[in-house]
Amino acid sequence: MNKLEENDKEEITGKAGILSFPGFPIVIGCIGKNLITLAAISMVSFYDPPLIMIGIVPERYSYDLIKEVQDFSVNIPSTEIIEAVKYCGRVSGRDVEDKFKESGLTQVKPSKISSLLIKECPVNLECKLVKTLDVGGSHVWFIGEVVTAHRRKEYSRSQAFMFWPGEYRYVGDVIKK
Amino acid sequence: MNKLEENDKEEITGKAGILSFPGFPIVIGCIGKNLITLAAISMVSFYDPPLIMIGIVPERYSYDLIKEVQDFSVNIPSTEIIEAVKYCGRVSGRDVEDKFKESGLTQVKPSKISSLLIKECPVNLECKLVKTLDVGGSHVWFIGEVVTAHRRKEYSRSQAFMFWPGEYRYVGDVIKK
Repeated sequence: MNKLEENDKEEITGKAGILSFPGFPIVIGCIGKNLITLAAISMVSFYDPPLIMIGIVPERYSYDLIKEVQDFSVNIPSTEIIEAVKYCGRVSGRDVEDKFKESGLTQVKPSKISSLLIKECPVNLECKLVKTLDVGGSHVWFIGEVVTAHRRKEYSRSQAFMFWPGEYRYVGDVIKK
Repeated sequence: MNKLEENDKEEITGKAGILSFPGFPIVIGCIGKNLITLAAISMVSFYDPPLIMIGIVPERYSYDLIKEVQDFSVNIPSTEIIEAVKYCGRVSGRDVEDKFKESGLTQVKPSKISSLLIKECPVNLECKLVKTLDVGGSHVWFIGEVVTAHRRKEYSRSQAFMFWPGEYRYVGDVIKK
């Protein structure tokens, strides 16, 4: 009872521990008219107000852009557009004038922000930048208030998919109680 | 080409947008000797230094405790201990003297922090508190540097599982390229 044991596992360092997590939600962020694939995304607050944050590496084109635009949209893709997800993660907005056109995605008019939304994504969140969080390390985080959102009536989270370095995965089955 | 369309989706408000994300990693946090099940967890930085953050509702017992202890461990469970995961999410440390004993989990000695680790979890991350993030809303976030981590040799992310309100899910299959 209540015994304290020695750890019988391998010690791992650096990012290996973090990469052991079982997946990150994958989304396409839209900042102004530029698209960026992101798995660095987290809920910050469910209510009063609802907040999410997205993490961007400072070298990325979107990093300066978001400071200029002051808002962003988060678009949850379905597996049907996995090629567009890959494209938006691979190609920089510095090198392409119109990522919507090149990726085959369709622009949708936002209600309350200036950044565009993506028609093919079954969920769109409109976010106004409220705070920037820089605690050092690889990513700077932009916290946004979800001022409104849009969802396809027939959307189910099972249509979405996950990412972690090296692989994309389907959402798994519900564990029966 | 490059056309701007009206949104044909339903407008949703509050936390419904955030809850549309395809799952959150589920972990058991250990603060001192108290255990808490958490799905509010995110990577903050992969390196220089590796950072993660955990979100805690201020009313929870762990909220005051973490300020006192100044470190925490993050333990990734496998589906084998799903009952312990549920137990640690349901029962407050205010009401139970020894959650390890009650949940059937075994204490493991940490290397570099004071908070205990969990033997039955195949991955343990030792985190030192570096910053508290309170931007209002439902959760306060504790950012920790991952000072070391431990992983079972045979661990695969497929053994882990995901959570979102209402259901637990297995990690899904890899999407073939």
